[in-house]
Amino acid sequence: MKSILFNPIALYIFLLACVPCAHAQIPDPGFTVDNTTAIVITDPQNDFLSPDGVTWGVIGESVIKNNTVENLETLFQLAEAHGIQVFISPHYYYEHDHKWKFEGALEKLMHDIGMFDRGDQLNKEGFEGSGADWLPRYKKYINKDFVTVVGPHKVYGPEQNDLSLQLRKQKIDKVVLAGMSGNLCVESHLRELLEDGFEVAVVVDATASAVAPGYDGNVAAEINYRFVASHVYTTEEFKQSLK
Amino acid sequence: MKSILFNPIALYIFLLACVPCAHAQIPDPGFTVDNTTAIVITDPQNDFLSPDGVTWGVIGESVIKNNTVENLETLFQLAEAHGIQVFISPHYYYEHDHKWKFEGALEKLMHDIGMFDRGDQLNKEGFEGSGADWLPRYKKYINKDFVTVVGPHKVYGPEQNDLSLQLRKQKIDKVVLAGMSGNLCVESHLRELLEDGFEVAVVVDATASAVAPGYDGNVAAEINYRFVASHVYTTEEFKQSLK
Amino acid sequence: MKSILFNPIALYIFLLACVPCAHAQIPDPGFTVDNTTAIVITDPQNDFLSPDGVTWGVIGESVIKNNTVENLETLFQLAEAHGIQVFISPHYYYEHDHKWKFEGALEKLMHDIGMFDRGDQLNKEGFEGSGADWLPRYKKYINKDFVTVVGPHKVYGPEQNDLSLQLRKQKIDKVVLAGMSGNLCVESHLRELLEDGFEVAVVVDATASAVAPGYDGNVAAEINYRFVASHVYTTEEFKQSLK
Amino acid sequence: MKSILFNPIALYIFLLACVPCAHAQIPDPGFTVDNTTAIVITDPQNDFLSPDGVTWGVIGESVIKNNTVENLETLFQLAEAHGIQVFISPHYYYEHDHKWKFEGALEKLMHDIGMFDRGDQLNKEGFEGSGADWLPRYKKYINKDFVTVVGPHKVYGPEQNDLSLQLRKQKIDKVVLAGMSGNLCVESHLRELLEDGFEVAVVVDATASAVAPGYDGNVAAEINYRFVASHVYTTEEFKQSLK
Repeated sequence: MKSILFNPIALYIFLLACVPCAHAQIPDPGFTVDNTTAIVITDPQNDFLSPDGVTWGVIGESVIKNNTVENLETLFQLAEAHGIQVFISPHYYYEHDHKWKFEGALEKLMHDIGMFDRGDQLNKEGFEGSGADWLPRYKKYINKDFVTVVGPHKVYGPEQNDLSLQLRKQKIDKVVLAGMSGNLCVESHLRELLEDGFEVAVVVDATASAVAPGYDGNVAAEINYRFVASHVYTTEEFKQSLK
Repeated sequence: MKSILFNPIALYIFLLACVPCAHAQIPDPGFTVDNTTAIVITDPQNDFLSPDGVTWGVIGESVIKNNTVENLETLFQLAEAHGIQVFISPHYYYEHDHKWKFEGALEKLMHDIGMFDRGDQLNKEGFEGSGADWLPRYKKYINKDFVTVVGPHKVYGPEQNDLSLQLRKQKIDKVVLAGMSGNLCVESHLRELLEDGFEVAVVVDATASAVAPGYDGNVAAEINYRFVASHVYTTEEFKQSLK
Repeated sequence: MKSILFNPIALYIFLLACVPCAHAQIPDPGFTVDNTTAIVITDPQNDFLSPDGVTWGVIGESVIKNNTVENLETLFQLAEAHGIQVFISPHYYYEHDHKWKFEGALEKLMHDIGMFDRGDQLNKEGFEGSGADWLPRYKKYINKDFVTVVGPHKVYGPEQNDLSLQLRKQKIDKVVLAGMSGNLCVESHLRELLEDGFEVAVVVDATASAVAPGYDGNVAAEINYRFVASHVYTTEEFKQSLK
Repeated sequence: MKSILFNPIALYIFLLACVPCAHAQIPDPGFTVDNTTAIVITDPQNDFLSPDGVTWGVIGESVIKNNTVENLETLFQLAEAHGIQVFISPHYYYEHDHKWKFEGALEKLMHDIGMFDRGDQLNKEGFEGSGADWLPRYKKYINKDFVTVVGPHKVYGPEQNDLSLQLRKQKIDKVVLAGMSGNLCVESHLRELLEDGFEVAVVVDATASAVAPGYDGNVAAEINYRFVASHVYTTEEFKQSLK
């Protein structure tokens, strides 16, 4: 406060950027894909993206409106074409997760509706085609070598899995982020990757969020991406940026 | 997906909770203050809460509308009256932080406007009354024994400081969260505290967020608190809950 | 330094505890099992504990000397008898882990010898009876409800998995730690659990460490457990403490 | 286990590397300083390195034997000469840290003897020349621009401070580690930096550890550095490697 008043350069920048502050634009630091950049996709799984998934009733409309399913496929294709590694951070709930003694609101909902259920990490019975399985159209990419599937996250962020380590073990410093759902796992990944020291951009229409009465997750996600990411792309803008 | 269809109890819960899903209410797990509960306040500093602070132009209107300054004072008073410990997670930027090679959007803005600036952790010159200092009316509480000031966070969340450790070293399991700004540091603290295994409630009108053209941080914060916290209080509701 | 000279109580404690400092005993804070206590076991897997495992040549002698296999079984039995939850933090390496661009010394060795290899988390082919599988005699415990298997760690500590979260979701504050190997995964779990705010005791003879020419991991583990844990038990002492 | 028997290449590597395994050498992955490399120094403070410090009685002999004080100064000089950034992770205990409800063994000792005591982060009274202050001969380096002092750690590792973030914000991927004390803060920093995805080498004689009856921290540190780091240097070897 004082410091800015007595620092002519800071004051000048402040005046340029902030007057009138009530109309301040949020700066856009920008993002450039280079050979330390990877794409990270959260939860490209049936329970979010298939009309048969347990959340389709609250999220299907957003998925359709954003064209999320096709946009995520475009990201896989662009990655393969341009030699960009893709890391997938999935969401699985095991039987023991249903015995948690407390949960936040959406954690409770996910457990109540059996979302992402899988017996345990050593059990694949009933997994094929379940809500926890990949959306079928993505399997042909995920099975290839340019895609790495890290361990499951358990709340919303990558704090419980090895995503950041796997990125660093490949000397990745910058992340283009997309997936499901926008204001929960994508946003928590965004925030944690920033704290872990990555540069992060988001592809906003390769995400989608749940809509509950009075609470539209898409609105929250779009605001917060703009506040904290280095840049927010549409899928088309990201595609153009690679040319 | 499959699992729910063949599991009559899960299906029943699903039908109760989710049909029609498009109108699904978000569950409210609830929150009860007990002797493992603390209040955590982020950034109760001049740069956010004083009309002289560097962000007042973008955040002052929200602070006034929410009555944030008084509501935070009420939280300090309730804590003292009910023997609840308060932990403050402040935000300081040192000279070397201005040499970062990359920043997200609001990180860039905060550095450009000299927000929370302080020479370094061994330098108090010019600190008194600066934008990084406490709002004066809170000092009489912060100087008391029921308040612990942890290290500074550096992006938005407590990943870079000792907040979680200090809470655990006092056998705290549950957190009532408030402070500044709503969709940045408060929300990042909320998300990280959840990942760290705390139960967390938010006092929504003891926060406030920046408003930029087209991007209202208050809207994002309110949606996301409701999605992920165990409960969202107003200050008045929190006060009533302690009776 | 100065502070102690001018603070009579601190000086008195210092003199009692530390003179002559060269002969200072390390304090023993002690540990009591209560209903917030769990047992955590790292890597109870064939590659460490079976004579057919890939590390038996360097670690078998320590396993036999400590009676590690039987002592770990005793911990499972004590846990079941006393209603103590057990959490297992396993070690799996997937195919993509073999493509890391850099590794520390033992990471390199583990990859070179194919330790804990498993195709990926969605692949159980060849797992049964492999080096990554549980030691057979532990399976009857691990399959029961008092045991929770968390995600795999990837270097040595629980930073890459959900161990701390799973403990907190069961309101666990205190950990009795054992498993393999002593100076690597056990010690890294010990150090990280301390940073995460748990009270931790170690059962030293329910661990064992590798011995390389000039470098005995058991020696390092025993010194460091004593320096940093709240208490170091033998299995017999731990058993007696539960009576 | 099985996998290696049926995999001729892995078996061959295994035979080369490990037969007879009882005599297996630990591999040495090596380390090369490049423009993504920084030096990290823990706790270069009076309480460890000055004959007036509170731990000199247990650690002084090791400091003298290793020539630690001079070797750390050599690292500062080499860094300045070769344009390598230095990051210091200090150790401060504030008044509220003395109210922790539980502590591991050395945490308890450090608090009992008033080690690294400082009122709080907004209080510099009595700091100059105290046990928490820098060893005087290092001040001329620490005051220069090539040195960054991050927040204090509170147990042993950088989990409670912003070290990893500050490194990443300077695009640092590799760390040369040294400082005090060898088997506590240096080793915990080593382990956590590995989990955070840094390549790490240690300069073993620019560290020193406490010796308690029956427990020589230097022995533990030297074994564990060799097991987990990418390379272990002496100060002289590190100097030669820069030529």
